[in-house]
Amino acid sequence: MATEPKKIIIDTDPGIDDAMALFVALRSPEVEVIGLTTIYGNVYTTLATRNALHLLEVAGRTDIPVAEGSHVTITKGTKLRIADFVHGADGLGNQNFPPPNGKPIELSAAAFLVEEAKRNPGKVTVVALGPLTNIALAIELDPAFAKNIGQIVLLGGAFAVNGNVNPAAEANIFGDPDAADIVFTSGADILAVGINVTHQVVLTDAERDILAKSNGKFAEYLCKILEVYFSYHHDSYSMRGVYLHDPTALLAAVNPSLITYTEGVVRVQTTGITRGLTILYNKQKRFSEATEWTDKPTVKVAVTVDAPAIVKLVMDRLME
Amino acid sequence: MATEPKKIIIDTDPGIDDAMALFVALRSPEVEVIGLTTIYGNVYTTLATRNALHLLEVAGRTDIPVAEGSHVTITKGTKLRIADFVHGADGLGNQNFPPPNGKPIELSAAAFLVEEAKRNPGKVTVVALGPLTNIALAIELDPAFAKNIGQIVLLGGAFAVNGNVNPAAEANIFGDPDAADIVFTSGADILAVGINVTHQVVLTDAERDILAKSNGKFAEYLCKILEVYFSYHHDSYSMRGVYLHDPTALLAAVNPSLITYTEGVVRVQTTGITRGLTILYNKQKRFSEATEWTDKPTVKVAVTVDAPAIVKLVMDRLME
Repeated sequence: MATEPKKIIIDTDPGIDDAMALFVALRSPEVEVIGLTTIYGNVYTTLATRNALHLLEVAGRTDIPVAEGSHVTITKGTKLRIADFVHGADGLGNQNFPPPNGKPIELSAAAFLVEEAKRNPGKVTVVALGPLTNIALAIELDPAFAKNIGQIVLLGGAFAVNGNVNPAAEANIFGDPDAADIVFTSGADILAVGINVTHQVVLTDAERDILAKSNGKFAEYLCKILEVYFSYHHDSYSMRGVYLHDPTALLAAVNPSLITYTEGVVRVQTTGITRGLTILYNKQKRFSEATEWTDKPTVKVAVTVDAPAIVKLVMDRLME
Repeated sequence: MATEPKKIIIDTDPGIDDAMALFVALRSPEVEVIGLTTIYGNVYTTLATRNALHLLEVAGRTDIPVAEGSHVTITKGTKLRIADFVHGADGLGNQNFPPPNGKPIELSAAAFLVEEAKRNPGKVTVVALGPLTNIALAIELDPAFAKNIGQIVLLGGAFAVNGNVNPAAEANIFGDPDAADIVFTSGADILAVGINVTHQVVLTDAERDILAKSNGKFAEYLCKILEVYFSYHHDSYSMRGVYLHDPTALLAAVNPSLITYTEGVVRVQTTGITRGLTILYNKQKRFSEATEWTDKPTVKVAVTVDAPAIVKLVMDRLME
């Protein structure tokens, strides 16, 4: 008896590694992508929507709906930080692809998330690859969302390591710390995959060369857009390779045995110089006084990853 | 040729492990304790001064001056957090020792630190065992202090681990985060010994029993006051032993080869739920934008510790 594929919605700000994650998802028989929701982050939301539609057209999967997400942080007052210096001004390696033919659906990202969770209670996994505004809005829109959603696998946080926006904060959490704190304390089944894990998963120059020589449609497309992403990594980290952030989070949702995790309460600092910082309480100490972590629901935080297996899965599926 | 002992000033809030550190210092031929400065933390400053004088009388070392420190945080508005539930209401295990005969000197702690650093430029080490208010005041009092002082070895911070006040913050930094940030960014030669290191150094029940059976004056005194400290550790950490926070920092100053360290910029979060959090920038990434860590002086942060050697030194010197 074949297992039914896991329904996933990818909340995404494409983004070069978002494109990679999406293509891997579309080639993963373990999951069925039932929708994309868009968010600012690597690009502004309008461009994220355009890129999401474009990527689905490249993949020949215009059957998958795209719901446009929030254009602003949940507190609305925060200036957005757009990582165009990582992904190119167009978010896809400065390739100036033609505009897509498709349009997003009428529902907002948050409303789409709420509806799909309600339609298949406990059966839908959200893979959140950008700032968590849409997920927090879904939680605010429907008090039952946190219960109805199956799992939220999110790329976010820098647990016990430096961030990638600054020494304190990882980009997705920094993008909307208030939203992230709402999500982490919502009581939903959450698996956070932070850069402490994704920095272990590197696609090297040599592996890109293998991708480039394959006949895979997705491999070929990605090799065009990857140049900017490789340059950024070389400049920032003196490395010859790129971190597979989004594909790692996606594959953690596809096959949870690729990672191990710990459980504890995560809170997000929303002000000051460490704004966007994630602090996991590991429960080792019983504090004498109540803390901001007391009586909050626990989440799962990824600790180890089978990096070679992830890289192999990404390569194999993109070269199919 | 005998090396001249290193001159140290201990900034202290006694405190059970402060008493232990002081006694170890007085039995360490490698250092000469040229003064104590007092600070709130385990107790209020008035009681810290009283306890410092009392401990010197117990040791027969009333020749060592005690300079009373600040009674308030550097921003003056913050409610103090006093850890009487760790050390007893009197700071010394609820033993109701008689008041000391001695008095503090006329100089404030900050002024004393400034004077001693000026008198022996580059030759005085401050071992800071409480919140860093006095050190920050010395930096503000004399722009040359950071240059004149030899080294500041401080017990403080929770680097890449949970804090002990709450999941974000360690007690000494939490006690005055603004002062700590001034100290960490002052340009002085700083070695921070955080609870990520001191939690590796445990005095067990069995070792306390050995201390109790010895004839050492200090061992005997400490075994009386240690009961409260053991109870606290058992309640908070389910452990049969106590962390040797202050003795570890003291011994790192006495013999730097007992620890290893990394170097980087440390900033302190001063507001919000992670107030008192220390973030070390490890310089692995070149950030695209200037951060709050950019262009700040680096400090040393202890990473590993020879825990058995520290415990043995503490035991041996207290049992002399």
